[in-house]
Amino acid sequence: MAVTVVESTHVTYEFNPSMTPIAEVEPGSLVEFHTADALGGQIRSEADTLDGLDFSQVNPATGPVAIAGAKPGDALKVEILEIRTASHGVVMAVPGLGLLGDLVKVPQTKIVPIGEEYVDFGSGLVLPKRPMIGVIGVATAQESVPCGTPGDHGGNMDTTDICAGSTLLLPVFQPGAMLAMGDVHALMGDGEICGTGVECPARVLVRVNLLKAAGLARPMVYTKAEVQAIASARTVSEASALAVKDMVAYLQRETDLDFNESYMFLSLSGQMRISQLVDPLLTVRMAVSKDVLSCLQHAAK
Amino acid sequence: MAVTVVESTHVTYEFNPSMTPIAEVEPGSLVEFHTADALGGQIRSEADTLDGLDFSQVNPATGPVAIAGAKPGDALKVEILEIRTASHGVVMAVPGLGLLGDLVKVPQTKIVPIGEEYVDFGSGLVLPKRPMIGVIGVATAQESVPCGTPGDHGGNMDTTDICAGSTLLLPVFQPGAMLAMGDVHALMGDGEICGTGVECPARVLVRVNLLKAAGLARPMVYTKAEVQAIASARTVSEASALAVKDMVAYLQRETDLDFNESYMFLSLSGQMRISQLVDPLLTVRMAVSKDVLSCLQHAAK
Repeated sequence: MAVTVVESTHVTYEFNPSMTPIAEVEPGSLVEFHTADALGGQIRSEADTLDGLDFSQVNPATGPVAIAGAKPGDALKVEILEIRTASHGVVMAVPGLGLLGDLVKVPQTKIVPIGEEYVDFGSGLVLPKRPMIGVIGVATAQESVPCGTPGDHGGNMDTTDICAGSTLLLPVFQPGAMLAMGDVHALMGDGEICGTGVECPARVLVRVNLLKAAGLARPMVYTKAEVQAIASARTVSEASALAVKDMVAYLQRETDLDFNESYMFLSLSGQMRISQLVDPLLTVRMAVSKDVLSCLQHAAK
Repeated sequence: MAVTVVESTHVTYEFNPSMTPIAEVEPGSLVEFHTADALGGQIRSEADTLDGLDFSQVNPATGPVAIAGAKPGDALKVEILEIRTASHGVVMAVPGLGLLGDLVKVPQTKIVPIGEEYVDFGSGLVLPKRPMIGVIGVATAQESVPCGTPGDHGGNMDTTDICAGSTLLLPVFQPGAMLAMGDVHALMGDGEICGTGVECPARVLVRVNLLKAAGLARPMVYTKAEVQAIASARTVSEASALAVKDMVAYLQRETDLDFNESYMFLSLSGQMRISQLVDPLLTVRMAVSKDVLSCLQHAAK
């Protein structure tokens, strides 16, 4: 099957309601996005720091690509088939950045070699690679949102489970949906506590499809083992309430559980997970095991 | 070896600086705590709700037990050997309680049968049992803290990894440490989003020991696979900053990583996890894999 390739020279720095597509594809198409790193490729050696960086080039997202026939109210289904990273990435400790930014005295940049299976942290330590997409989203309903910020449209969700093998659902707010992505990390922990993962260029192969009139409020991701509702807000508590609300709605659609039972079930069997704590809005995900869900769906039939 | 049994008739409703022990044991001793459920055993049928509950009997912790020789600055090491639950537990949806408390219209109480391996949620759904200790702590440095609130002394941390097979370290603030515990859940998800797990009476067998002059600021838990720093604060972001600070301190003690390297390492390889989002302070844990730590410790030698 033909693959539409989108080069990293075609980027946007915000998601907004009136994005101009650089290509249009049919539902079912394969698209390969070539993405720059979150720093716009400006950090090239360990001597480079954020000083002197051109911030207008930070957080580029490659795209957008229009999906033919996508209408507001649909969901865009993005199967993440493969993420191939570059051979090097960047990690940075920056005064003022991340959860302990006030304790960073001297900025430090680390260039991290990335192999097939591992990233080389230095000091004799190699860590298992786990590539993920930091920024992925669609045209918004009303606002202009910089690519560094997450929201109901997706954006900078920095969610480790948005990785190869997962399927992401995004609500469609504008005709054509307008998919763009960037900010791949070869590795990042839940929280992204210093404000960077292993930031690297990448090639991301996806298959796009549409779910008509899906009525999705916010992104959801299906991993191999779980269904997750993703939400972003000013605080983790606010974001968590949104994610629970979305998962309760999902359970009420998919199973026989009523509101109270869904709420109690999630308190026992749902896992609230932190995606990131360092962007302008914070992101969490409410995860439920597919095994348990299939028992509930079976019982509902 | 003899086991000191502490009955659930010996309870405290707060952790404070001047607790009177109901027993004293030597380091290395086995102690079995018999715990009431968090509702003080007042919910006996599905017709019972929080209306009419005597709130002075809510959140009892069995104890405290003094550990001979424990001094401020030591750490109390609690190996959790076994948690045997009662045959039934309670889950509740309560207007105003938990993340979606404002959406609960009618209070509901569910009595949940607890088997050897599963809890029976009803509606044809059984869920794997995973007993954990909700409240476990020691005498505080200065404040009186109700057992429903977590803090640097432990308390209502509602942390799923405080379970059989884990070892909990608690900072000692007062002579004798004064260990008390309660609020066992047969099952709870990270977040405890409706405000209850499967609340049940239990018998908890632990071995207590002392680490002299450990310099621990807050609780840590060692699971089979991970080391975790636990912290509680008014917001998840504040609690997370404390947990990162504790884990950075741990890495600087145990490995060759300096501050910047520890901070970057945790952003890649540390997982920030939510314990609970529903108590007066919120609780998180910063988790690092023991496998990765042992590489770092090996490299430091």
